[in-house]
Order: sequence, then structure tokens, then C-alpha cells
Amino acid sequence: MKKRIIIINGPNLNLLGFREPDIYGSCSWEDFFPQLRDAFKDSAEFTHFQSNSEGEIIDRIHQARGSDTPVHGIIINPGAYSHYSLAIADALAAVKIPAIEVHISNIMARESQRKTCVTAASCIGMICGLGLDGYRFAAEAILSMNQEKSENGY
Amino acid sequence: MKKRIIIINGPNLNLLGFREPDIYGSCSWEDFFPQLRDAFKDSAEFTHFQSNSEGEIIDRIHQARGSDTPVHGIIINPGAYSHYSLAIADALAAVKIPAIEVHISNIMARESQRKTCVTAASCIGMICGLGLDGYRFAAEAILSMNQEKSENGY
Amino acid sequence: MKKRIIIINGPNLNLLGFREPDIYGSCSWEDFFPQLRDAFKDSAEFTHFQSNSEGEIIDRIHQARGSDTPVHGIIINPGAYSHYSLAIADALAAVKIPAIEVHISNIMARESQRKTCVTAASCIGMICGLGLDGYRFAAEAILSMNQEKSENGY
Amino acid sequence: MKKRIIIINGPNLNLLGFREPDIYGSCSWEDFFPQLRDAFKDSAEFTHFQSNSEGEIIDRIHQARGSDTPVHGIIINPGAYSHYSLAIADALAAVKIPAIEVHISNIMARESQRKTCVTAASCIGMICGLGLDGYRFAAEAILSMNQEKSENGY
Amino acid sequence: MKKRIIIINGPNLNLLGFREPDIYGSCSWEDFFPQLRDAFKDSAEFTHFQSNSEGEIIDRIHQARGSDTPVHGIIINPGAYSHYSLAIADALAAVKIPAIEVHISNIMARESQRKTCVTAASCIGMICGLGLDGYRFAAEAILSMNQEKSENGY
Amino acid sequence: MKKRIIIINGPNLNLLGFREPDIYGSCSWEDFFPQLRDAFKDSAEFTHFQSNSEGEIIDRIHQARGSDTPVHGIIINPGAYSHYSLAIADALAAVKIPAIEVHISNIMARESQRKTCVTAASCIGMICGLGLDGYRFAAEAILSMNQEKSENGY
Amino acid sequence: MKKRIIIINGPNLNLLGFREPDIYGSCSWEDFFPQLRDAFKDSAEFTHFQSNSEGEIIDRIHQARGSDTPVHGIIINPGAYSHYSLAIADALAAVKIPAIEVHISNIMARESQRKTCVTAASCIGMICGLGLDGYRFAAEAILSMNQEKSENGY
Amino acid sequence: MKKRIIIINGPNLNLLGFREPDIYGSCSWEDFFPQLRDAFKDSAEFTHFQSNSEGEIIDRIHQARGSDTPVHGIIINPGAYSHYSLAIADALAAVKIPAIEVHISNIMARESQRKTCVTAASCIGMICGLGLDGYRFAAEAILSMNQEKSENGY
Amino acid sequence: MKKRIIIINGPNLNLLGFREPDIYGSCSWEDFFPQLRDAFKDSAEFTHFQSNSEGEIIDRIHQARGSDTPVHGIIINPGAYSHYSLAIADALAAVKIPAIEVHISNIMARESQRKTCVTAASCIGMICGLGLDGYRFAAEAILSMNQEKSENGY
Amino acid sequence: MKKRIIIINGPNLNLLGFREPDIYGSCSWEDFFPQLRDAFKDSAEFTHFQSNSEGEIIDRIHQARGSDTPVHGIIINPGAYSHYSLAIADALAAVKIPAIEVHISNIMARESQRKTCVTAASCIGMICGLGLDGYRFAAEAILSMNQEKSENGY
Amino acid sequence: MKKRIIIINGPNLNLLGFREPDIYGSCSWEDFFPQLRDAFKDSAEFTHFQSNSEGEIIDRIHQARGSDTPVHGIIINPGAYSHYSLAIADALAAVKIPAIEVHISNIMARESQRKTCVTAASCIGMICGLGLDGYRFAAEAILSMNQEKSENGY
Amino acid sequence: MKKRIIIINGPNLNLLGFREPDIYGSCSWEDFFPQLRDAFKDSAEFTHFQSNSEGEIIDRIHQARGSDTPVHGIIINPGAYSHYSLAIADALAAVKIPAIEVHISNIMARESQRKTCVTAASCIGMICGLGLDGYRFAAEAILSMNQEKSENGY
Repeated sequence: MKKRIIIINGPNLNLLGFREPDIYGSCSWEDFFPQLRDAFKDSAEFTHFQSNSEGEIIDRIHQARGSDTPVHGIIINPGAYSHYSLAIADALAAVKIPAIEVHISNIMARESQRKTCVTAASCIGMICGLGLDGYRFAAEAILSMNQEKSENGY
Repeated sequence: MKKRIIIINGPNLNLLGFREPDIYGSCSWEDFFPQLRDAFKDSAEFTHFQSNSEGEIIDRIHQARGSDTPVHGIIINPGAYSHYSLAIADALAAVKIPAIEVHISNIMARESQRKTCVTAASCIGMICGLGLDGYRFAAEAILSMNQEKSENGY
Repeated sequence: MKKRIIIINGPNLNLLGFREPDIYGSCSWEDFFPQLRDAFKDSAEFTHFQSNSEGEIIDRIHQARGSDTPVHGIIINPGAYSHYSLAIADALAAVKIPAIEVHISNIMARESQRKTCVTAASCIGMICGLGLDGYRFAAEAILSMNQEKSENGY
Repeated sequence: MKKRIIIINGPNLNLLGFREPDIYGSCSWEDFFPQLRDAFKDSAEFTHFQSNSEGEIIDRIHQARGSDTPVHGIIINPGAYSHYSLAIADALAAVKIPAIEVHISNIMARESQRKTCVTAASCIGMICGLGLDGYRFAAEAILSMNQEKSENGY
Repeated sequence: MKKRIIIINGPNLNLLGFREPDIYGSCSWEDFFPQLRDAFKDSAEFTHFQSNSEGEIIDRIHQARGSDTPVHGIIINPGAYSHYSLAIADALAAVKIPAIEVHISNIMARESQRKTCVTAASCIGMICGLGLDGYRFAAEAILSMNQEKSENGY
Repeated sequence: MKKRIIIINGPNLNLLGFREPDIYGSCSWEDFFPQLRDAFKDSAEFTHFQSNSEGEIIDRIHQARGSDTPVHGIIINPGAYSHYSLAIADALAAVKIPAIEVHISNIMARESQRKTCVTAASCIGMICGLGLDGYRFAAEAILSMNQEKSENGY
Repeated sequence: MKKRIIIINGPNLNLLGFREPDIYGSCSWEDFFPQLRDAFKDSAEFTHFQSNSEGEIIDRIHQARGSDTPVHGIIINPGAYSHYSLAIADALAAVKIPAIEVHISNIMARESQRKTCVTAASCIGMICGLGLDGYRFAAEAILSMNQEKSENGY
Repeated sequence: MKKRIIIINGPNLNLLGFREPDIYGSCSWEDFFPQLRDAFKDSAEFTHFQSNSEGEIIDRIHQARGSDTPVHGIIINPGAYSHYSLAIADALAAVKIPAIEVHISNIMARESQRKTCVTAASCIGMICGLGLDGYRFAAEAILSMNQEKSENGY
Repeated sequence: MKKRIIIINGPNLNLLGFREPDIYGSCSWEDFFPQLRDAFKDSAEFTHFQSNSEGEIIDRIHQARGSDTPVHGIIINPGAYSHYSLAIADALAAVKIPAIEVHISNIMARESQRKTCVTAASCIGMICGLGLDGYRFAAEAILSMNQEKSENGY
Repeated sequence: MKKRIIIINGPNLNLLGFREPDIYGSCSWEDFFPQLRDAFKDSAEFTHFQSNSEGEIIDRIHQARGSDTPVHGIIINPGAYSHYSLAIADALAAVKIPAIEVHISNIMARESQRKTCVTAASCIGMICGLGLDGYRFAAEAILSMNQEKSENGY
Repeated sequence: MKKRIIIINGPNLNLLGFREPDIYGSCSWEDFFPQLRDAFKDSAEFTHFQSNSEGEIIDRIHQARGSDTPVHGIIINPGAYSHYSLAIADALAAVKIPAIEVHISNIMARESQRKTCVTAASCIGMICGLGLDGYRFAAEAILSMNQEKSENGY
Repeated sequence: MKKRIIIINGPNLNLLGFREPDIYGSCSWEDFFPQLRDAFKDSAEFTHFQSNSEGEIIDRIHQARGSDTPVHGIIINPGAYSHYSLAIADALAAVKIPAIEVHISNIMARESQRKTCVTAASCIGMICGLGLDGYRFAAEAILSMNQEKSENGY
């Protein structure tokens, strides 16, 4: 059975490929997402959701725990909300679905206000600075989570 | 041609599998490393180095730029040194070899003094909270770096 | 004449009863609200509004001052927005309707980032840690406000 | 059986009604307390204690756990001690009697040094800004605590 | 050819003229905007957008770079979002359209939390304290930008 | 009758046009001032004063309230003194002449120590980042102050 | 008619003359007080109160407003309580009797924790570093207060 | 023999009597100084110096140690320089003449930036909030310094 | 000759054995003190004093220097006062009797506000985390102080 | 059976007796250690290890858990590493052997940077300021730990 | 050709030799300067300027770029201005003449407020603690700058 | 007799000439050291020691006080350890040999974490930003120390 994974992209990520390509790369989400889907076509079913609104992101996280077809994992790139949205952090903690935070750029090497990750504290882990591959690794991590947990420590 | 990757594990990581297994997992490095090697046997050649000493870690980073067989990438888990060793950060910046920082536990969900990553600022990116898989993803990232850089943004 | 009171619940409060019941209790809003209405059926007319969006909460606060049927009091549980939404604080200050902030859990005994209440500064007072009864006390306070103000000091 | 509740008022609360009436109201404790007693005459038995001394307040909290007639709940207005008396916070934590902190004025809208509540962290909850009604709501909360805890979340 | 300028007003600015007139003046946006339009009727074409939602403001900033009729300049009064919305700051940086931040009141003479302007760092400049004239000066600045840049230093 | 406006330029502004032209522009004050005078020749009479000395700037602010020909408005660019001269701030507050602070560069986008404006707290408003046009807008603001105050909110 | 002045000395001031004489002098209170009384024998009637207890100091401040013979002025040396007793500050603010804070040593030249004067904010003024003469000057200030207030500015 | 005392008034004190009279009183220095001189005509010889310039104040402090007629004491009101002029503090420490700092208003009850007294650390003591009488008390303190030092502790 | 040692226990230590036994142990002071006395019956004479009042603790410290039978050493467990009572710290410094601070629990492993020891700065040393044995070691230290000082360094 | 205790002395402690004897005493480790051994010759077997290297200290802590002859207790004086070595703190937490931190001087009375004890948080307790006796008390504490734990609270 | 070097000494340096000789030495500038001149008589031409005024120091820095005989290097000892004069820092950055900051005492070993060097950030380097020799080394550095830059790294 | 000087270079300084040459210059230590030796061949005898290990640096500092041939001066470039190694600072303080700290780059103009020099507080002085010449000036300073101390003030 395939696992259901939702990818939630936060503010300004709709501009991927156009926005400051030296920081975020020149590949748009529209180009990348089919590749990702293809790479995991046997094991995962992806939904993608992008919003610039903190409230809509929270709404979408809540829906992930829907009674019929709950999601097995959340990959979230909260963009700048990562640094101050305690409300998104609360939403992630509330739904109790394993989540992994992804940042395309290395936030640890940018301005100090980007080094605080309020939302990552409600996730299993975080990947930053590895470009769009971060999404791929996050997906792999979610897929391998059940069988390896006891051994590998996450 | 295989890429040469060095994995540098910092203080207390020699106790992996024994030390606080609820945080760091029950798999020792001796069990894990052959698996990792095996998984990348066609593409990468790994060297492993562990030390509890800040100075020896710096020494080893310097050696990575040795004239004959320079290393293509560094995977570093600086342990607690991540949070205060400006000297290791300087060493990583000096050698100019792509490095990725890995933490087994999710440092963003621990005590506040563990949320500052001085060394990660000299790396390409960071992975935390994904257990030993973090090393695997870091290796994949180093291997895919050349061909995808322009597209994927890292 | 009954007083009109609007209850505004912020992010993640739609999960009440499901979300971390050891912190927030096991009673859902759907179960609680009829009890509240019933308890004040002779003196108050309640409207309820929940949103995960900072902007919609501000919109709803503005509507409370609508020319025809202005609201006599606001009971607001801004959830995590309490701790950083200067914009909601501004909205509460702008409409000049008496407001009382309610938190279900005792925010003073939680993480330090939950001890700052930006929005409470624009309210008459705050109640925290008394569970859903906090809403009841807030309603009583709004109803008793006019006749007692001069004596009791609020 | 009536519940025994002790009300502990801290420094400067003996001046209630006289002291800055625009902040604290013009009703003295002598006028208010009989009303409070009367309102709960069937369900609660109140003791009142006021002191300007940190040490005496701690002494009185300790007595509340007296072997013969332990108190069921504490309503405490620690006045300015709320903001720095870790010793009172320790006393409240030590006796393990449910306590609710009350402030007459809205401390969240005053000077920044009044926004820290050291003692409230050892209480079940806090009420501020609702004048003398805060004591009434605190009493109601203590009385309703047993039967509702599991549902309402405090 | 007229220049296209969009004016984006953030939270609570829909209450202009009604809200705390001693701070924000008694002139509503509906009264002011036609005057502004009239004053620049030969040189500029204004669009106005107001929202209390951080997400909608970001959406609108993104639209400003629409392929057909891109906007020449943005005048933004982010209201309280100015002080914490790193997401709006990112949006302004992403679209690369010259933007000027306007505040009606003198934020430098208000509470300390209003002295930090996160969003202004992504703008060309800021005007505060000059009431609605701030919008007029911002418009003039955008119109004069091209011809004077090299001389006047912005 | 023309209004008397004094322009006070602080430290290093005598180097305008020569000093870091990529930040401050290549137009010197000697080139700019006649243009400014000319633009307002019917409505304002300008005096210009530049000094690198904190004390002389205070002296000049005091003279502005001279009994015979008091000044109607002050345009002040305190340069770096803006960030620490409480003494200039006191002088502006003491003379009670409407003052507007101007910065040529966008101080909100520079080093953190340049984001604090001690002196602006004693002014009506501030303009930054709009180059020499800032002086022009400040002059317009002073001229329009009387007739519009009640409507436009400054 | 003589003015009634109460002198309240806080913790450790009972050791005056014995305690660290290089800081606090070698003159005891018992030696000094008669001199002070004598110096003002025609104009003032002094009461002296010393306590090491924060609560007793508050009690004594309250008594100063006693209905029959209210005190005209308070001279208070709160000792170390000056630096953290918000409760004493509240008491001084509550009784509305002019108070002057005195410190024997120059607290501005000692450790940083002694540079904050919480209680002085509720006084008319403070004198420090002038030894026991500080009490004498404080007494003179209270006596001259009524007739000079309008001219001299306190 | 009369003692020579120099009074140094810092920035904005030349406006005394005119500037914010509710804070600083309505008595000008010209009215006050003759009174002061007269009061001490048998014991002290005063020189007065006022400057708005940090440098000139330092110059004047240096002159006080002139070889021929050195000054016996300095009374200094550094105005706002008190809060940041480490250079004036250095000058006072260098000349080794006993100095007393005076502030007319109670700086401990004003904005937090006025509670730090950098310069007072180089003085014997400080008087604040006692209006112009502060100068009188400072003069008395200087005059009584020699004979009482050993007893009174300053 | 036996040495006289006074043990001063601060707030909430009267509850020893009852209060949070997992932190403070299950042995009461009444059970422990005779053991301590017995263990040192040949060398020391102990007095014990417990108070919840900061003022009474200061009083008792002062008495320790009583002229007739001065105390040779003080063992003080200031409880929570350790973290903020500058007044107790002053008292210890004033009496000049060697004092050792004891904490039953390891304050270095608790909340950050318990890591600051204001009072320990006036003591010879501190022992924490060693339970009631801390008192025993403190007594031994006081007894061995004279003969070993020059060699062992305290 | 004797208990095995290892004493680990950190940086600069090899200079004991020579280094700043007024702070650290004039007794060298070579003189002291035999005395210590002798005093516990029936109950404990001591090993001593000194290193100036953070890494070697961690190595030695790890060895203490060696499978054959594990150590019963660690006495560690981390010297200056106490204040910043999170890596040593991690090592102590990892080995789970009871450890007690010793400082010869009273670090609570020295510069503020010496008041933070990062490593002590991973120990059972800390002793400071009691000179070399601190080692003796630490040894006693380790020896008495088993039999008294339940009573004395550590 | 000789290089022109200007030495600018800031506040209180005119007292050199007299002021706190244990910190600043007993050699006056008048004694030292001829020695310095003499030592470099073949290679450098020195001008000396001392002022206690921040503004005059800025004026003098500006003159150093005079069109006819520009200066080759600036040696500046800004005294206490080093720690807060952003205006002098701006002046040094504006003139683009290589500058070296000198402090006679070791500011890194003094009070914390003397460890921040605002002005040094606009210089090539800083020398402190080497007494008057600091000026000599600074001169040597300026003279050797051109020929060695590429090799020695400054 | 020649003076013995040891030069201790800390972490990453073995890469000199290769590491970021735009910051640290292109001259390697191997090229520079003979020049330095040569320049002082008549007056000084240099030893050089480089290590990336904090512990080895401390060891080497200790050896400098060896009984037979003690060193007359230490020139230390602690690299990044300068900013956090309290242990090296302690070692320098312990050996009491005059030490001078050297940094090749101007640390005052770099990131804020490089502006704190923990180790420099145990040295006589510091030189930064003057490239490899810093070592030369440090050597000159050590050589001239004895004969000039009394005059030049270090």
C-alpha cells in the first residue's frame, strides 16, 4: 500500500524558480513536482498545497488528520513563518502526524532572525540547504520511518 | 569514478547505540557503517573518523584537502561542538570542501543552547532529527551535487 | 434586554476535545457551547466565530462594531496569536468594545514564549488555566460590568 | 459539605478602596468580603488573610495543609510579590493545594515588570483585570473543579 | 505614459478616520483616495488594496509582478505587520518592484515594539508620522525615481 | 507670508556627493540646495546649517526659538547622532518647533545599530531612503501642516 | 507648626557604624540621629523606624497616612530592597506622601545590580553617596517643598 | 578661606525656566544663581559654566585642576550626557576633584534610558529630583566634606 | 573548646521530608538534626533557626555577631531567597563570620532562575545537590578552616 | 569491598600550588592526593587523571564505564571548561555514573562568566569554594550515596 | 618622499602623563612626540591634533582628505569615543584614508563597556595595551602598507 | 643576552597563505617566520608552536614557565579560541609571562561573535588587522618592555 504524504509549501514558495534564483535555484515547483512523484511512484502518493496564508496552512494541517484517509506524513516548508508562527507549530503538534521541515536554503548561514525555527520544534526533524532534494530526503525519511525507528533513532 | 566522502563524528558519538538510546537509537556506528558503505558501494568511498577532541576534528578537516587525494565531500556531526566551536566552523570554511552537518536528534526541539549551530553556517546545509538516515541523505546530497546544482538550488 | 457577546476562538481551537486532551480537556466546543448558551439564556446572546487566520479574526473584530447591532462584549481566545499578533491587539484597541482574553491552559506555567500576551494589553482582563469555565467567567464579567464598575475596579 | 477556601491577599491590598481607586476601585475589602461570603454561603467557607510580609504569606500557605482541617483551595493575590517571589511560588508548589492567582488590575497592560508572574506558575490558573469579581470567579472555579476536571480541561 | 502604482494597506487601515482619530486623523481612505488620484492624474494610475490578512497581502504583492501589466511601484503601509512579518518582507524582496513603506503615525515615538520595521528592510525607504501625506510623498518618490536616481542617491 | 524653515545637517553631511556615492548619491549639497530653494521660492525661506558637533547642533536648535523671528519648522538629518544623541532629542523636545527627521539612505536596511532613532522620537515624523527628495517632502509636510492637521492625522 | 517626618531605614542599616566602615562610615545611627534632630529642632519632628523586613517597612509606610497625625514626608533608605522591592515601591505610591530615597554610598559606582532603583521611581527624588548628610538634605528638601515647588521644579 | 566650586551645566540647561516647566520648574538659572551665591557668600565662591558640547564640558573639567587656583569641588549636571558620555566620566576621573552629579528631575521615574548614569560613577554621589535645591545640597556637601568624612561615610 | 555554628534554614525548609520528597528527600529536619549534632558532639555546638521571612533571617544573621558569644560559622540554606535576596547577601557580608551556603537539590540542574546565587557571593563557598549531607560537609569545612587555610586554599 | 572513584582534573589544575596561590592555595596535588588516599584507605580506591584537553577529559569519562571494572563515582573539576563545555556535559550524561563537580575557589563570587556551570547540570551536585576539602567531601558523598539516598534526598 | 601621517588624539589624552599614571604611564605627549618624530625622521612627516570634542575630531578627519596635500594615513586614539561614536566611525569610512586605532591601555581587560570599539570597525586595525609604543607600531604599519599588502594580508 | 620568545599559533593558522588569502594574506608561515627571525637575530630567540587543539595550547603555555629556561614573552594568536576559551585565558593568567595577542585580520570589523576577546584580557595588549606585521610589533613590544615600562605606560 502506498503511503499518503502531503507537502505544504508556505509563503513565497509559489515563486520558486523565479525568486532570487541564486538562493533558491532556477527550477520551478511545476518542473520539480512531477519528478518527485515519479521517483516515488511505487511507494508514495503526494498531495501538494501552497499558501501564503498562515491560517490556510493551519487549516490544511488540520485536514491531514481527516477521519477517512489520514495522511501518513507531512513535509512542510513554512518559509518565513518558520521563524515566528507559534500557531503553525501548535497545529503540527495537535495533529500528531509525523512532519519534517524543509528549507531550500541554508538558514543557518543567513541573517540571525532566520536561525530560529519555531515550527521545527513540532516536527521530527529538519533539512535545510539541500535545495529541492530536501523534499526528496524528507519523503524517504517518512517512508522508512516505521521499519527503522527502533534501530536508527528517530 | 567513485567520490571520496569523509564522515567526521564529534564528541560522544563513539557511544552511539549505548548512550541514551531513546534519543540516539540503539544502533551502533559499527552496525550502521557497513550498511551505509554497502548502499553506496558503486558511487562513493567512505572514510570514517571519530574524535572527542575539537583539535583533532580540525586536523582531520584540514587533511581532507590533502594534495593527492582530496575529498569530494564532508559529512560532519560535530555533536555538542556544533553549538560553540567557531574554530571548527573556521576549519570548514578554510578547506572549501562541500560539507553537510548531520544531527541524529532534532536539536530544534531540545534545550535552547542546542538550537544555535555555529558550525552549520560553514556548511552547505544541515539535517537533524532523522536518525542515522541523516548520514545517508547527506551522502546522496553530496553525490548529486554537481549535476543538479543549477536547477535545484544548492 | 439581552447583551450581545461574541466569542472569537483563534488557531487550533477548532480541535478542542481532540487536541492534547491532557492540556485542553476532552470536551469539544460543540458540546460546551450549548451549555454556555443555556446558562446565560436570560441575559446574553452569544455568537461564536472560530478561525485559524489572523486576518479573519481581525475582520470579525471589526464587524463587532457594526452600526446596527453592535456587540456589547468580546470574549477572545487568540490561541498562539496572543503571543505575537500586534495586529489583533490593534484591532481590539480600535473597536473600543470591552474584550476579555481567555486561555484554557495556564500559560504562565508553560514555555517562556507563551508568557507574553501581546493581545491581552488591549483587553480589560485575562483568564487563564481555568479550562472552558474561563469563557463562563468572562461572560459573567461582561454582564456585570456596567453596574459594578465604579465599585469593584474594572 | 462546604469547601474550605482561604483567600490570601498580599502587600498593599489592605489599602483596597483607598489606594489609587482609578486602578483598584473604590470598594474596600471590608465591604466586599461579606458580599462574597454571602454569595457562596451554601457551598464555601472562606478564611481571609492579608499580610504585607512575604514570610507571613508563606507561613499561611503552609498552615493551609494543616492535618486536621486542610483547605480545599487557595485564592491568592500576591500583589507585587507575584513578580519576584520565587519563595511564595515554592510554598504554593509544596503544599499541593489547588491555588488560583487573582489580580484586580490588568497586569498585562501595565509596566513590563508587572507582566512576569513567578507565582502563577505554581497555580492552576490566573485571573487579572476583572476587579474584585476575580475573587468570585476564582471561588467558583475551585468549587467546580472536582466534577468538571475531566471534561473542561483544568 | 502614466506609471502604475499599487497602494497596499494592511491590518486595521480599513478603519481609517474612525480608529483613534487623535493618532490616525479623522479623514477616511474613501475621502482621501480620490484627492490622491486627482493630484497625480497626469502621471500615475493608482490601484488600492486593503486587507487584514498577511497572506492576502503577500498574494497581492506577487500579482504586482504579473507579466502583462507589471506595476512600477508599491506603496505599502503594512500596519502592525511591519514589526514582525518576515513573510511580507520576503515577498517584497522577491518581486523586485520598488516599494516604499508608509506609516501614518510616528512609530519612532510609540512603544518599543513598534520601532522595529522588518518589512522596511525590503523597501527603498520609509516615511512615518506625516499622516496621509506620507502616501503622496511616496507616490512622488516613485515617479521621480528614474530620472533622479544617479544624482539624489536613492 | 513665507514660512521660515531651518535645515540642520549633522556629522559627515558636508561630504555629500563625495562620500560613498553609491549610498548617498553624487549630488552635493551645494548643487541641491539652490534647487530646493527654487522649488519653494513662493512659500518658504530656508536657512541651512551643517555641523559635525553635537553641541553646535543643539545650540542651533535652541536659536530656532529666538524671540524675534522664530522658525516655523525644522528639517534635521542628525546623521549618526540619530542613533545615540539623547541630548539632541532633548533639545528638539525643548524648543517645541515641529521637526521632521530625514535620512538619505534607508537606515532600516543597514546595520542594526542604525535602526534605532533616538532623535526621531522628538520629531513629528521621519523620512528615510528617499535620497535628497526626503528634504523636499519634509518641507512640503511642514508647509501643509497647519491646514491639514485635523483631517490627515499628523 | 513643625512638620512630621518619618525616617525609614531598611535592611542592615541597624549595623551603621560597624558594617564596612570604609563604605558606610564609622558613625552609628545612635550618634547621628540626635544631631539631626537638633539641627531641625525648630522646624521638624522626626520619627525613626528601622527594620530588616520588607513587610514591616510596608506596614510602616501605610501607618504614615494614619488619619490623626499624618506624616508630611518620608525619608527612606530601603537598603538592598531598593533594587528589587516592587512591593515597597507600590506602598510608597499608594500613600501619596512625598518621599525621598537616600543611600549612604554612591550606588552608581558599585556593582551593576545596585544601579537599578525600583523604589526611587515612587519617590520625589534620590540622594546617594553623600553619607549621612543625605538624610539632612532630604529633610531640608521636604521642609522647603511647599513654598518653592512652583519655582524650583520639584 | 572660601572654597572654590565650579558648577557645570550640560546640554539644554541654558533653557531652564522655559523648557518643559512642569518637569524642570519655572525658575531660570539667572534667577537662581544669585540666590545660591548669596546663600553661601561666606563659605564658597562659585563659577558657573554651561555648554551644550560634550567636548567643551570636558575642557572645562580639565581646567578645574589648573595649577594656580585649583577648584575644591565640581557640581555637574551633565543633562542627557549623563546617560552615555563615557568621555565626561573619564574626564571627571582624571582630574581627581570631588564631584557631585545633580539632576533637576527624578531620572529614576522617567524612561529607562535615563536610569543609567555613566558619569555618576566618577562622582562622589548624585542628587536627583529635588529641583534646583539639588545644587544647594551639593554645595553644602562639598563644603562639609573635609571635616566629616571620617564620621559620616562619604 | 567547641566551635559555635548556627544553621539558618530559609523559606519552605520547615516542610523538609514532606515537600516534594523526590527532590528534597523523605527525612525531616527533626530526624536529621540530632544525627548531625551527634556526629559533631565533640567539636561543635549547633544552633538551628528556620524562618520563611527574609527580614527574620537577616535579624538572625546580625545576632550571630553578638558581643558575648559570637558564632564561629554560619551554614545557610536560603532556599529561594538565594536567587534574589541582595539584602541577605548584604547581611552576610556585614557580619564577617565565615558562611557556607547549602542547597539540598542540585540547583544547577533546575530552571534557569535557580542558577543565580546572589547570596553565595557573600559566602566562602557553596554545596548543592548532596542532600542533607551538604550540612555535614559544611560543618566539617567550618571546623577545619583555621588549621588548613594556608595549605588548602579556602 | 572498596569503591572505585576517579578524580578528573581539568585545565590548569596541574599548576595547583603554584598558580595564584591566594585563590587556589599553596598545596600542590602531589602533596594533597596521598593525604586523600590515606583518609579513605579502607573504603575507596582512587584514580587520578589530569588533562588540559577537553577531548581527553571526554575520553576518560567514557573509559570510566569500561565493562570490566566500572567506576562507582566521578569527581570532576572541569576548571574553566565548566562554563562552556556542553561536550563534557554530554559525556557525563552519557555514562550514567554518579558525578560530583568540585571547584576550589568560590565561583559564585568571581566574574559573571564563571557563574554558569554547564557541566554541573549533568552531575549530582557541586561543591565550590571549600578548597581541596571539596574533593574530600565529594568522596564522602559518593561513598555514602547508596545507603542514605532514600532518606537524605540525593 | 616622506609620507604624511596625522595623529588624532581624542578626549582626555591631553592629560597624558598626569592622568592615572598607573594606567596610562608617566610620559606626557610633549615628551613622547619628539621621540616619535625623530624615530621616523626619514620616512614620515607627522601632524598631531588633540581635541576633547567629537565634532572637531570629525572635522579634522575630513581635512585629512584635503585636495592639495592629502594625508597617507591616520593614527587615531579616539579615547572613550571609541566605544560609542558612530559619527567618528562614519567620518573614517567616508575619507577612505587608511587608519589605525591605538589605545594605550588594554581595553580588553577593563570594564565591559570599554570592550566595544565602534570606531575600529572603520579602521584597518587596532593596537591596544602597548602604551605609547602603539603609536610607533601604527606608524610603521602605515609606512609598510603599500609594499607588503599582497603578502602579509592587511 | 637574547630574550626567549615563544609564538603560539592557534587553530587553522597552519593554513596561512592558503586559507582565504583575501582575509589572511598569501604569505605562508614558512615564508614569514625566517624573515621574522632574521629581523630580530640580535635580540631575540623565537620558538614557534602551532596547534589546533585548545588543550595542547594550554600545555605549551605551561611549559613556557619551565624552571630552566623560562620564556621572556609569549606572542599568541589564539584564532577562534580567542572568542570563547576561558581555559586558555586562565593558562595565560597562571604562568605570569607577559603575553601579547595578535590577530591577522581586523576582528573589530567582522561578525559580532569575533569582537569578544576572552583571552586578550589575560594579555598585556592586543594587535589586530595589521597582518603578519602584528607578530613583528608584538616582538618589538616584548623586547622594549623592561626599559620603557615606567615611562610609556604598559
